[in-house]
Amino acid sequence: ANIDKLLGGLLARDGFDESRCASRFGSYLYRKASSHKPSPYLISRLRRYEDLHKRCGPDSESYRAALEQLKSGTKIGSTDCNYLVWMSFSGLGNRILALASTFLYALLTDRVLLIDRGKDMEDLFCEPFPEKSWLLPLDFPLLDQFNSFNPNSTHCHGNMLKTNAMNTSSGVIPSHLYLHLVHDYGDHDKLFFCDDEQSLLAKVPWLIMKTDNYFVPSLFLITSFEQELGRLFPEKGTVFHHLGRYLFHPSNHVWALITRYHQTYLAKADESIGIQVRVFDSRPGPFKHVMDQILACTLKEKLLPEVDMQDSVVTVSENPKLKVVLMTSLNAGYSENLRDLYWEHPTITGEVVGVYQPSHEEYQQTERQMHNRKAWAEMYLLSLTDALVTSAWSTFGYVAQGLGGMRPWILYKPENETTPDPACQRAMSMEPCFHAPPFYDCKAKTGIDTGKIVPHVRHCEDMSWGLKVVDSHDEL
Amino acid sequence: ANIDKLLGGLLARDGFDESRCASRFGSYLYRKASSHKPSPYLISRLRRYEDLHKRCGPDSESYRAALEQLKSGTKIGSTDCNYLVWMSFSGLGNRILALASTFLYALLTDRVLLIDRGKDMEDLFCEPFPEKSWLLPLDFPLLDQFNSFNPNSTHCHGNMLKTNAMNTSSGVIPSHLYLHLVHDYGDHDKLFFCDDEQSLLAKVPWLIMKTDNYFVPSLFLITSFEQELGRLFPEKGTVFHHLGRYLFHPSNHVWALITRYHQTYLAKADESIGIQVRVFDSRPGPFKHVMDQILACTLKEKLLPEVDMQDSVVTVSENPKLKVVLMTSLNAGYSENLRDLYWEHPTITGEVVGVYQPSHEEYQQTERQMHNRKAWAEMYLLSLTDALVTSAWSTFGYVAQGLGGMRPWILYKPENETTPDPACQRAMSMEPCFHAPPFYDCKAKTGIDTGKIVPHVRHCEDMSWGLKVVDSHDEL
Ligand SMILES: Nc1nc2c(ncn2[C@@H]2O[C@H](COP(=O)(O)OP(=O)(O)O)[C@@H](O)[C@H]2O)c(=O)[nH]1
Ligand SMILES: Nc1nc2c(ncn2[C@@H]2O[C@H](COP(=O)(O)OP(=O)(O)O)[C@@H](O)[C@H]2O)c(=O)[nH]1
Repeated sequence: ANIDKLLGGLLARDGFDESRCASRFGSYLYRKASSHKPSPYLISRLRRYEDLHKRCGPDSESYRAALEQLKSGTKIGSTDCNYLVWMSFSGLGNRILALASTFLYALLTDRVLLIDRGKDMEDLFCEPFPEKSWLLPLDFPLLDQFNSFNPNSTHCHGNMLKTNAMNTSSGVIPSHLYLHLVHDYGDHDKLFFCDDEQSLLAKVPWLIMKTDNYFVPSLFLITSFEQELGRLFPEKGTVFHHLGRYLFHPSNHVWALITRYHQTYLAKADESIGIQVRVFDSRPGPFKHVMDQILACTLKEKLLPEVDMQDSVVTVSENPKLKVVLMTSLNAGYSENLRDLYWEHPTITGEVVGVYQPSHEEYQQTERQMHNRKAWAEMYLLSLTDALVTSAWSTFGYVAQGLGGMRPWILYKPENETTPDPACQRAMSMEPCFHAPPFYDCKAKTGIDTGKIVPHVRHCEDMSWGLKVVDSHDEL
Repeated sequence: ANIDKLLGGLLARDGFDESRCASRFGSYLYRKASSHKPSPYLISRLRRYEDLHKRCGPDSESYRAALEQLKSGTKIGSTDCNYLVWMSFSGLGNRILALASTFLYALLTDRVLLIDRGKDMEDLFCEPFPEKSWLLPLDFPLLDQFNSFNPNSTHCHGNMLKTNAMNTSSGVIPSHLYLHLVHDYGDHDKLFFCDDEQSLLAKVPWLIMKTDNYFVPSLFLITSFEQELGRLFPEKGTVFHHLGRYLFHPSNHVWALITRYHQTYLAKADESIGIQVRVFDSRPGPFKHVMDQILACTLKEKLLPEVDMQDSVVTVSENPKLKVVLMTSLNAGYSENLRDLYWEHPTITGEVVGVYQPSHEEYQQTERQMHNRKAWAEMYLLSLTDALVTSAWSTFGYVAQGLGGMRPWILYKPENETTPDPACQRAMSMEPCFHAPPFYDCKAKTGIDTGKIVPHVRHCEDMSWGLKVVDSHDEL
């Protein structure tokens, strides 16, 4: 069981106070073992990263030296450790995906990841690295400027490129740069994804990154990272699956929500299915076309049994198979509807179906503490189910599928208040979708369809212009 | 198990098509055996009643003869069978209690009970008597006049007394009388509960009764019934418990709701508690003072475990004891609140507590079919729990406690939007309360406190002027 406890070697054994993070070594009790093993190379790189983090993290000699560089404004001489600071930004699902991408970038560039704790990162997550914190110290010099960083800031990489302020030939290297990789970023910001810029960025001791996106797919298109990514992830569609389970351990508060809910409502079921309903509509709902879509998908894909509307099945078996549906949604209507359906009518299979929804917060309240604890608990609970249905465009669902190692059935985004037909599609991989990828050929300096360059980076099922990593066995 | 199946001999074995009423012989699988055995005398009287019903019920020779009497207006000669027709009236809880009282009166007076099916009696209940239906035939001559029966009708017993139209010395006996025993009844209607009137009513072949009350307690105060009631119910506080389980078998539709809900949500629990929340307020709620009351009662009485609001209990046991709360209410707010409480915080006992509410119909919709099926299913489900909390004044709760054979904790009726202190009281007996009893001494022809005449008829816990039957060992 020890190998299970460490998720196949993904997690470091030592350097943690177990009582401060019950989820780290307790998750294996709730989740069935992943069928995807992390590669030995990924494991060794994680251990190497941990050593780097220990050596360069807050309070270290190197950290203090790097801070001096930062204060002086330009890089002087060589640096021992380079840093990547992640800015806390956007909804929780987006943040998790952005942070995983940022960590992968740190891993690829040998940088130390430090995170802005924002309103509640500390409240929601355990420390992922042994011994040294990943939290950006509160006295970090630029912290009070974070709110004012924007695409036009002087130190914004894209802006400097636009204004030709990035004069590297002079040999003067700025000690920090701001990387604006938010969904609304411009063409110059997008040059981040070009090899030329990467070799330049490599010289800058402090990179401060703001993003709400899972930009991993585009990292796969940067030639200089290609080989390393191939070694880290021989099974390509497992990037977030592994990094997510490595990085994101629910804090004890959140873990208590997860385990209590599981024990109270889900543990006794013979089978469970998660349905994540995210409706991008400002009106409150519930909407009939969405309810119809949920039913069309789950019944057609045989995730849920049909009911006998004529109630002709009167024989009640004494100990029927129990299936539970865990539904998450801001609105209570869909689960109530489904719960009533399976209460009011028998299934044609004789199973009984229980329907659960932990919360229905009605509207997105990104900043309230209990709200995000519950949102995180719900993503995690979804990831513990046996099969998953998600909503198009939602990072909330991506997190669940990735942590759970499941290829979900994705409910297409309805247009014109009409139930799409087909209602859903099975995802090609369990990877999240990058919603705002660049479409630029760095070498040819021209536009290109980045979803057609390599077989393992394709357009997403749920967003035609998005990119996602897939396992591809047939080369282009 | 056969004795269980027949509820200790309460139910007749033969004369039923089992498939048409799965609940009759299936209930013992869901309810633990009652610790109250029906008396052998009650059992023999029920069998005798069944014989009477078979002989005199619809389609029999005697029934046809009695109909002739009815049509002729006055009683001519002697009658073979006398009838008691129950009019369907009021909310479902009231109806069930009224019907049980009516059946007991039929039993005491050797009448055949026939019920007006109203909108949904047939949809909700099985036939309780072997072979012959208890449903009043649809061609019953007076059926179309039922709606117009009122305290001032010519054939209303009370009205006839008031207007001196009840001239019995002439020897002319009307072939039918209307008994108005609705909560708003007048002093003359109340003379029904006097021996003199009973000996007169005994001669009338057809009695048609309209009531929304559990009038059993006042039957105990009628001298001529006293001895028989004592023989039928040596354990006095079990009248509704036995008669309710004898008479009210959920129809297959409702039984499916009950068993499906039970199997899906309740069966796997180690312990269950029912909480029936009925708020007599026209505003929608939920109300804070009611929520506070529910918590005050259940925590103080140790029906539910305290939670640790500081979340200091972090150790999660792997297989904690599971307690479920089945809450019924027209409003969803109370159960959501309770569910959140036990999700958000650990209990100090280490138990986990699941909270369920089958429906929340928001307002009373007495006539919609599925609404009353669910109301009936919910009363029944409450009766299957291990401990019960009910709301003052509510017949819905009385039905549950009676069928379940439980002395509930009664939540006092809040006044001035304030949580009562104490919040609840354990009931003296599992009997329902008669909400509108007469206060009249038939012999002395004067007012009297009818709650102080005999030790086994007392004022109710939840309504000071109500009367209920209790087990009394200390004589007055
Ligand atoms: N508890 C809960 N919160 C949700 C749900 N759906 C959306 N939210 C809230 O809305 C935010 C949505 O932002 P995000 O997590 O980035 O997901 P996305 O907008 O679906 O990509 C979440 O962080 C939650 O705060 C849900 O099903 N349950
Ligand atoms: N399903 C459901 N219906 C209820 C509930 N409380 C009240 N009702 C409805 O309101 C009616 C109340 O009338 P009745 O049963 O006579 O109970 P009482 O008014 O509480 O004495 C019920 O028959 C139901 O139709 C509840 O908790 N659940």
